Amino acid sequence: MSYDKGNKRAVVLLSGGLDSATTLAMAQQQGFDCYALSFHYGQRHISELKAANRLASSMGAIEHKVIKLDLRAIGGSALTDDTIDVPETMGTDESKIPVTYVPARNTVFLSLALGWAEVLEAQDIFIGANAVDYSGYPDCRPAFIEAFEALANVATKAGIEGHPFRIHAPLIHMSKAEIIQTGTVLGVDYGQTLSCYQADAEGLACGVCDSCRLRAEGFAAAGIPDPTSYLNK
Amino acid sequence: MSYDKGNKRAVVLLSGGLDSATTLAMAQQQGFDCYALSFHYGQRHISELKAANRLASSMGAIEHKVIKLDLRAIGGSALTDDTIDVPETMGTDESKIPVTYVPARNTVFLSLALGWAEVLEAQDIFIGANAVDYSGYPDCRPAFIEAFEALANVATKAGIEGHPFRIHAPLIHMSKAEIIQTGTVLGVDYGQTLSCYQADAEGLACGVCDSCRLRAEGFAAAGIPDPTSYLNK
Repeated sequence: MSYDKGNKRAVVLLSGGLDSATTLAMAQQQGFDCYALSFHYGQRHISELKAANRLASSMGAIEHKVIKLDLRAIGGSALTDDTIDVPETMGTDESKIPVTYVPARNTVFLSLALGWAEVLEAQDIFIGANAVDYSGYPDCRPAFIEAFEALANVATKAGIEGHPFRIHAPLIHMSKAEIIQTGTVLGVDYGQTLSCYQADAEGLACGVCDSCRLRAEGFAAAGIPDPTSYLNK
Repeated sequence: MSYDKGNKRAVVLLSGGLDSATTLAMAQQQGFDCYALSFHYGQRHISELKAANRLASSMGAIEHKVIKLDLRAIGGSALTDDTIDVPETMGTDESKIPVTYVPARNTVFLSLALGWAEVLEAQDIFIGANAVDYSGYPDCRPAFIEAFEALANVATKAGIEGHPFRIHAPLIHMSKAEIIQTGTVLGVDYGQTLSCYQADAEGLACGVCDSCRLRAEGFAAAGIPDPTSYLNK
């Protein structure tokens, strides 16, 4: 493998949720050989890693790597700190960043994706960040993606030696319904994905957290049957 | 704790080496309450973590956190991959990035420091990056530090809410001799630090790797006795 026109490797961040599965399908459609990267970071919803495993395998990722990283050591989020409750609704104040925000999470994840991409001699990294439904998360906005791409190209041997990285966030301006419609056309099996912030060990979704609510509304708006297995339904 | 004029908390990356110990002393001299951060990342020279522990304690860090993170999963460096030998000299081609470069390491470390800083409501992060002796490492250069600071301020809740982060790299333009002179004035006990890329379990330095060589030359140039315990001497 080397940096030439034939190099179409990409690292794709794969959480196991609906967005990252769609992102993987879109990267594949663009002709990339995809290397899926997930994190075991102390998240409450560990069953999402099982979903990531299933998806990487069934969707034909070249490799699926899971990196252990204890973000609980840092805390500060309902998703990594048992003393902070996962809220049932985001509330009406959309300017407020929700407690499910994990400090610097996408920065950390993209950094590790960058390291792996450099080892693989891949120049393309895909992340399923979305600024529409999660406008409260700073690290899901276009300005963040652009700043990370600028960083990547001075932070690495590859970048300064003339092999620039591209950070792709193809969902960033899409609504949840558009994401679901796009993925459905590309053949994504959303029954294999898991979006819930507090799914149980079997991967059943709670049906009441923000993430479940946004997902359900997305299927309804897309006019596509929701294949999610809910705990409370 | 809150974001006000009295907030003088800083996160300091502390590897256990000479540079980061000096950086910690400089941050303390600037009046910061220092929170030291180290990584257990699969490095060959694990005894540096013991050195970091000793230093954080003896130098009065408020807290010392060690985050586990398996960079061996990524590989690509002599420092994290047993199949790549640590070279005894960097060679004469200074334009070449050495095999001890760990892909995206400082990006990953700063990302985690950023996450912890946000939880601590600290706005200052110190890193002992040095562009003089390690000019081959892209992530030890001023352009990298500036790009990371720009990223930090769009990547975080704190950053976009008007509490900007400052990434301090006070050693970046200093020679090894100047670093040692500065630290000596500030009372750093360099006998507690460990720089060797392949120190043994007792923390004895090999005396022949790049890092040992630069360190020894630094003490000689500074005219200060070298307190390092070498394996081969």
